[in-house]
Amino acid sequence: MKATILHAPRDVRVEDVPDPAIQRPTDALVRVTAACVCGSDLWPYRGINEVKRPRRIGHEFVGIVEEVGSEVRSLGPGDFVIAPFLFSDNTCPHCRVGLQSACDNGGGYGGRDREGLMVDGGQGEYVRVPLADGTLVATREVPDESLVPSLLTLSDVMGTGWHAAVAAGVREGDTVVVVGDGAVGLCGVLAAARMGAERVVAMSRHESRQRLAEGFGATDIVATRGEEGEAEVMALTDGVGADAVLECVGTEEAMTTAIAVARPGSMVGYVGVPHGVELPIGDMFARNVGVAGGVAPVRQYLPRLRDDVLAGAIDPGVVFDLEVPLADVAEAYAAMDERRAIKSLIRP
Amino acid sequence: MKATILHAPRDVRVEDVPDPAIQRPTDALVRVTAACVCGSDLWPYRGINEVKRPRRIGHEFVGIVEEVGSEVRSLGPGDFVIAPFLFSDNTCPHCRVGLQSACDNGGGYGGRDREGLMVDGGQGEYVRVPLADGTLVATREVPDESLVPSLLTLSDVMGTGWHAAVAAGVREGDTVVVVGDGAVGLCGVLAAARMGAERVVAMSRHESRQRLAEGFGATDIVATRGEEGEAEVMALTDGVGADAVLECVGTEEAMTTAIAVARPGSMVGYVGVPHGVELPIGDMFARNVGVAGGVAPVRQYLPRLRDDVLAGAIDPGVVFDLEVPLADVAEAYAAMDERRAIKSLIRP
Repeated sequence: MKATILHAPRDVRVEDVPDPAIQRPTDALVRVTAACVCGSDLWPYRGINEVKRPRRIGHEFVGIVEEVGSEVRSLGPGDFVIAPFLFSDNTCPHCRVGLQSACDNGGGYGGRDREGLMVDGGQGEYVRVPLADGTLVATREVPDESLVPSLLTLSDVMGTGWHAAVAAGVREGDTVVVVGDGAVGLCGVLAAARMGAERVVAMSRHESRQRLAEGFGATDIVATRGEEGEAEVMALTDGVGADAVLECVGTEEAMTTAIAVARPGSMVGYVGVPHGVELPIGDMFARNVGVAGGVAPVRQYLPRLRDDVLAGAIDPGVVFDLEVPLADVAEAYAAMDERRAIKSLIRP
Repeated sequence: MKATILHAPRDVRVEDVPDPAIQRPTDALVRVTAACVCGSDLWPYRGINEVKRPRRIGHEFVGIVEEVGSEVRSLGPGDFVIAPFLFSDNTCPHCRVGLQSACDNGGGYGGRDREGLMVDGGQGEYVRVPLADGTLVATREVPDESLVPSLLTLSDVMGTGWHAAVAAGVREGDTVVVVGDGAVGLCGVLAAARMGAERVVAMSRHESRQRLAEGFGATDIVATRGEEGEAEVMALTDGVGADAVLECVGTEEAMTTAIAVARPGSMVGYVGVPHGVELPIGDMFARNVGVAGGVAPVRQYLPRLRDDVLAGAIDPGVVFDLEVPLADVAEAYAAMDERRAIKSLIRP
């Protein structure tokens, strides 16, 4: 089959790799019908994370089940499935409380699992998905093509934005600030609005993203950053600060702003992978501002977000502003790297 | 009147100071019937916080209202009142959400307020309490003497331990770990048990404190510290970690342990004032362990904790293991400083 291989920074290619097959009775073989590029795929692509040797890549995909192992109970050939960006057994103590991203037996796509078997990357024609019952979430019927982009976001970005809002404790009527206007931040805006926030302030400097944020329910846009942006948010909230803040970037500057605009007693939900972030514990203590979040357990949120998408209640798929065939995967990466695209969809 | 003055490290004296009087229409004048020494009073006492000039001290007290200003509505002469360790108007945006410790118009005892008027320290015969309606919590009748120590803990330590449990999100049936066996940590054990925790693990090396912890509802004692203590907690929880962790010390070692024993997806509620603590954000992110807490809004918790004490549901006053007349305040400090006492009660 064809699959995406990252050879070196900015050298990503589609190549022939061995066809995957069922290897364990809990596996499912999925034919990928849509995949995408994650912001985190850009770290090795940009060389920020070292690329020691050529590797499979991609962890966001949807598709059709081709075959299942003998122990798989909840899925069968022909099912349309959404794959969370991590696989999980959904039965261990962490999965049972909804934190499938900490599954005792889980793992990621695009490399060898604990026993040395290849787990394909998501940016290819097929993926052998381990622990299929615990991992894949199916739809009752194969959904209309128009819904596929939105369902694909549930693999990662929409579930991650949702996690930020859950971690921040967003409640009905809240004033929520979202720091970051990437695909995750935009999905955070959508999550906060869907949870009933009365006011959602999107911090965004890019006009096209501001429009998307407004479409997702942002009531206010703050286009400035740093202390200027913080002052603007404080003015918008009569000096009180936000009831909940979503940090969707992962830089020191973004976290500093997130904590600064959080009202005393509130939470910052953070899902941007921290890069060089030092938490200001003295200020946090003085103002009772907490932080929570991390690697999103998107599997927990998938059933309800799937139903929201199918019901037309949310439409996160509009974050995709580029679509390419698998053969053009290099352009999918380059466009995001050069910020010509918010998020690229790939059609194998 | 007589009041306690801290002159220099380990030099604390009872001296004559001007009698306080009502100065604003929102004031109450309280005759202190019991006060105590806080762990945080030991910082200047030990010279960890600089003592630039002699200063009044003490912020935990109960007493009888002698006189109120013309605008005070909820209190009158003869009322028995509990004073939170900070005064607050209870009407500003932060008070309205229950975070009276961030009151826009609030402040502390033992110094000048924003307009330069002396606010007496709690370790003296009388205190002029500003914003009396928003600050003081009365009992319906003057309580039995036997209940006074427990009511006095609601000024600070019991409300602070409760805040740690609230910030950690303790729920019925939880396994809770409490790091720290000072008066606050012990009250944290009591809070967790009162909230319905099924298992409360107290980390304590001191036998007398272990006994108090057990009396407060601790089901397990871990007497080791650092990595050894963490391993013991993990073994007690089948490798899963605690559902909620209370950090009641404020040191790097205590916070490290608290985060290490928190199960993925859980919260560390911290009320130990951080001294040199650096939060391990990479580990927190990977395991979705959050932190929340800070200066406790004890005013929020006071009414319900008062009712719990009056009903005999909780008995936090047993943390007092030394009682002295005001004249012997130096011994009250020395005993805590030398760890001969957990907490000292002072009778003016």
